[in-house]
Amino acid sequence: MSCKESPHPGLLLVISAPSGAGKTTLSRKLFQIFPSLRPSISCTTRPPRPNERDGVDYFFVDDAEFDDLVEKGAFVEWANVHGRRYGTKKATIDAARAAGTDILLDIDCQGAAILKRQKLDAIFIFILPPSLEELENRLRKRATDSEESIRLRLHNARQEMASADGYDYIVINDDFDQAVAELCAIITAEHCRTQRRYDALEKARA
Amino acid sequence: MSCKESPHPGLLLVISAPSGAGKTTLSRKLFQIFPSLRPSISCTTRPPRPNERDGVDYFFVDDAEFDDLVEKGAFVEWANVHGRRYGTKKATIDAARAAGTDILLDIDCQGAAILKRQKLDAIFIFILPPSLEELENRLRKRATDSEESIRLRLHNARQEMASADGYDYIVINDDFDQAVAELCAIITAEHCRTQRRYDALEKARA
Repeated sequence: MSCKESPHPGLLLVISAPSGAGKTTLSRKLFQIFPSLRPSISCTTRPPRPNERDGVDYFFVDDAEFDDLVEKGAFVEWANVHGRRYGTKKATIDAARAAGTDILLDIDCQGAAILKRQKLDAIFIFILPPSLEELENRLRKRATDSEESIRLRLHNARQEMASADGYDYIVINDDFDQAVAELCAIITAEHCRTQRRYDALEKARA
Repeated sequence: MSCKESPHPGLLLVISAPSGAGKTTLSRKLFQIFPSLRPSISCTTRPPRPNERDGVDYFFVDDAEFDDLVEKGAFVEWANVHGRRYGTKKATIDAARAAGTDILLDIDCQGAAILKRQKLDAIFIFILPPSLEELENRLRKRATDSEESIRLRLHNARQEMASADGYDYIVINDDFDQAVAELCAIITAEHCRTQRRYDALEKARA
């Protein structure tokens, strides 16, 4: 039995969910409950919108800068979405975690799979709707999407849910309060993992 | 990414702590909070005390029966304590877990190490006093132990705390309510582990 020390006092929570599963509302609630939890800030080549601030919403970079970061291997993952590029810098995450901040990284299943291969000591959480039928009901109730868009979202949901097996935890967003309680429990429990309590262990033994 | 299905819907929580760390009080609180959590019932060759009931406090067996169980490999662990034998039957634990009951097995570090080698899909939790000094204070405050007994308990505590690295979780019993909250979070979070949510995952995908 040996002690595996984690170099990061802060957690890296990687959260994925099909569109309509309630990930955004759940994340917002978690930021309220845990003041030490912060969203991961991505780099992007898309121009800022009027209300967006550099270093708060995104790190805004031009194409040459983005190319340079890719070349240097600065990103743990990056993706091209409709010609605009988005990436997560390893240094940003490492600095936050080293300062004891828990980072929540909201990412699709493809991005999560890339992260998983990098052994970042991350915690992978999949938010599951109770059923595809219920997901469809929710998407229809929002009444913001066209029939075609709903069909596409359901098609994507099916694919995303197929990759849920590779996540560490599954939280079913059937009852919102229950889902929040489960996410809080995961964060609290992960802080109790032996490799993250090494300092306390050393102190108690002294 | 493949799905590792757990054959057990119920958790097996293995809890160890040095004497005086508060394990018994914490466990009692957990039994109140989680009605589906039950203590593991051991087999023993010691005779029942007046208030003890067979199948509730212990399974009382004679030496020949115990020998027979050892020979059959029925125990996941057993130990001889001052000439009386105590053992945990695999069948008892499996039956409870299959019925969805979470089992709490309170055991010393040597017993936990034996269990660990058996890949029982168990969760190992170590209850840590904030310091050896504080543990000594608590033992002295109880005023039930002789000086010799306190010294022996502290000596054993030091040894037990040395093996805490091999546990999955460390809960520091500094503030009692905080320790209870952390134990509750571990139980809730472990139920959210992907291999224990396989049924919900299949249902949502259907």
